Amino acid sequence: MKARVTVTLKNGVLDPQGKAIQSALGGLGFDGVDSVRQGKVFDVELTTSDKAAAESELKAMCEKLLANTVIEDYSIDIT
Amino acid sequence: MKARVTVTLKNGVLDPQGKAIQSALGGLGFDGVDSVRQGKVFDVELTTSDKAAAESELKAMCEKLLANTVIEDYSIDIT
Repeated sequence: MKARVTVTLKNGVLDPQGKAIQSALGGLGFDGVDSVRQGKVFDVELTTSDKAAAESELKAMCEKLLANTVIEDYSIDIT
Repeated sequence: MKARVTVTLKNGVLDPQGKAIQSALGGLGFDGVDSVRQGKVFDVELTTSDKAAAESELKAMCEKLLANTVIEDYSIDIT
């Protein structure tokens, strides 16, 4: 079973990396960029074919390793 | 106008970071993980409200800065 986990910074958390990308885009001539925020995506393949089990396992993975829940949100898409 | 750009490694390109995450998950007791591949996500806010213009601008941004198209694929979701 395949899943995509997306980890993004919570609103209000500063994102200097995103700011740097925004200014680099400006330097390349892309003027109409109001903001850029960078996050991470993990494409995970699980052996289980039970969707509920996969979801709870992925949630535990996010809490323990994939996301820093103090400053990051995560979302799980199982396909 | 908001958009999400997802950049992932092409199939066949080695992903040592993903392998490291997979083995870290194994060390935490998550045994049922067949593979992990890590990518990047960019949440971009554009001033334009023209969807077609936004899409072509985002495509140009990906080709020029956000993705290394030799080894990475990108997908654009405009919301």
